[in-house]
Amino acid sequence: MNNRESMGLRLRNGELSILDQTRLPGEELWLRIDTVDDMIEAIGSLRVRGAPLIGVAAALSLARMAEAGAGEGELAEAGMRLRAARPTAVNLMAAVDRLMPGGKVLEREVSMREAEAIFDEDAARCESIARHGTPLIEDGDRILTHCNSGALATAGVGTALGVIRRAHERGKRIHVLVDETRPLLQGARLTAWELGKLGIAHTLIGDGMAAAMMALGEIDKILVGADRIARNGDFANKIGTYSLAVLAHYHEIPFYVAAPTSTIDWNCSKGGEIPIEERGAEELRGFGGLRWSPPGTPVRNPAFDVTPVALLTGLVLETGLLPGDALAVGGLEAFLRPTTRS
Amino acid sequence: MNNRESMGLRLRNGELSILDQTRLPGEELWLRIDTVDDMIEAIGSLRVRGAPLIGVAAALSLARMAEAGAGEGELAEAGMRLRAARPTAVNLMAAVDRLMPGGKVLEREVSMREAEAIFDEDAARCESIARHGTPLIEDGDRILTHCNSGALATAGVGTALGVIRRAHERGKRIHVLVDETRPLLQGARLTAWELGKLGIAHTLIGDGMAAAMMALGEIDKILVGADRIARNGDFANKIGTYSLAVLAHYHEIPFYVAAPTSTIDWNCSKGGEIPIEERGAEELRGFGGLRWSPPGTPVRNPAFDVTPVALLTGLVLETGLLPGDALAVGGLEAFLRPTTRS
Repeated sequence: MNNRESMGLRLRNGELSILDQTRLPGEELWLRIDTVDDMIEAIGSLRVRGAPLIGVAAALSLARMAEAGAGEGELAEAGMRLRAARPTAVNLMAAVDRLMPGGKVLEREVSMREAEAIFDEDAARCESIARHGTPLIEDGDRILTHCNSGALATAGVGTALGVIRRAHERGKRIHVLVDETRPLLQGARLTAWELGKLGIAHTLIGDGMAAAMMALGEIDKILVGADRIARNGDFANKIGTYSLAVLAHYHEIPFYVAAPTSTIDWNCSKGGEIPIEERGAEELRGFGGLRWSPPGTPVRNPAFDVTPVALLTGLVLETGLLPGDALAVGGLEAFLRPTTRS
Repeated sequence: MNNRESMGLRLRNGELSILDQTRLPGEELWLRIDTVDDMIEAIGSLRVRGAPLIGVAAALSLARMAEAGAGEGELAEAGMRLRAARPTAVNLMAAVDRLMPGGKVLEREVSMREAEAIFDEDAARCESIARHGTPLIEDGDRILTHCNSGALATAGVGTALGVIRRAHERGKRIHVLVDETRPLLQGARLTAWELGKLGIAHTLIGDGMAAAMMALGEIDKILVGADRIARNGDFANKIGTYSLAVLAHYHEIPFYVAAPTSTIDWNCSKGGEIPIEERGAEELRGFGGLRWSPPGTPVRNPAFDVTPVALLTGLVLETGLLPGDALAVGGLEAFLRPTTRS
């Protein structure tokens, strides 16, 4: 077993820890994850989050369980529960499937090597996405992003935010507009924190402000991540993404998605088939310990929405940039060889 | 001097009080307003808010100052400062102007009668708006609203929320979707509270969720208030309103504005001329005593945005319903006789 480390996850001398993202930016608290149950709790409560990272995290916790000598039945059951921890991001299911190909549990030592490979592949994919995405960023661009698609959300530099980071490091002057991303405020808390650490100029705005900024000509392009991409190119991402896509279309602003191919669900023919997680009402009645709406206020709280491929200017994968118009005509099959998941 | 009372303001035995809306819904705290300075603080901090109500409140506090024997110079200076307390809603300027026509201070007793008339006219206008707006509401409608345009925002039943209330009281089954309205959460705090008191079915959503709800076919129409309407029909309202107007246009959902004619600024030819208040950064870095974004995070915080008349299905004034398409062609002059303000 070798050490691995990303901004939000550590495998060190056989010990697995995650940076508790619910405590950021106030506190950098690392939590030891000893069991699959610990990991399921951490994923469900968004202590560890980001479609690519939860896949990596789930695989590592399952591999450690295998290493510790768990039986095939136990592992299969743990895998099932991990898959169900968050229903929308497909990377989680795909990672669990890789440790249990065809429902069969991998051998003990193979299991950890596979989990480490998932980590390494994700980090490498981030770099490739950044390489293909960087040419889209022009000097002086004011780029709007939503939620957090940075190093905290992956095993590497991030997807959408990884593109922005590498473009910044190549000397392009960028200003990032950060949607706060209610209800869990991943933009206001995590993206603002990451950009601050990286020294990238940014401005925090409310989710309802993006349209006004577009009308004022203050947004040049939009770049977001994805939690699941259907075969036709429709994709799910954090609630509020579809809103930005429609607004970008109206204002004729380019709208790009950056994600690894592990986010593609070939079993899903179109966006309408993607299951959307509905989270608890308290998340919207307030935040943290503070509640500001009347007790018992009825709430809708879908964690994701679906953006149709027709609104996409381009999809940046680790394999290259797929233009939105071609994608809308031929779907992902026009560019990639489909794989199926069990 | 006669007593007056609305949900958010009381004139009782010569004493003026406001319900501190920053404390709602947790606490119903009435604050005595003794001086114009008290009122300026209350308006600036949104303890008293809503374009119609801040006009009424400003007029009453100025009239009480006149009654107390303040000199012409003092009154003129106080009026100037009141006008500047919030720059976007024009009702405030219009109300101060009515107490100082042509810059000349009204006589002491006339002053309070004029302020009381402003209160009474606003309450009556709310009823007329509700009467003209009710026919727009169909049985079973799921109506999205933004911010708070209810009894808390006026001297009467409200504008957009007044229409909804009266339609509900006439037996129409309505479900209201309430945008939480970051950063000051007037939807989550105030509209949810008012609707709860009125027994009107409602569901709270995040500002980024409206588009997804539209795509799912769960919103039949949108009804909001306004803070200033330009001569051509463009209007300013709480930040996030323009976003809803664009999204409604894309999803072919009717989008209505309800406001009294006191909200019209005949001196303003189009929306681009409306001054937009930029509020403090801390409002967006957290809420109440809680801050969740990194200290010093750069912020944009415009309190309002401008919606062009072309996106309007109809404008409900106390004089009747103006169809958006005719308004877009002829402006307000095609329907109303212009007045000018000093």
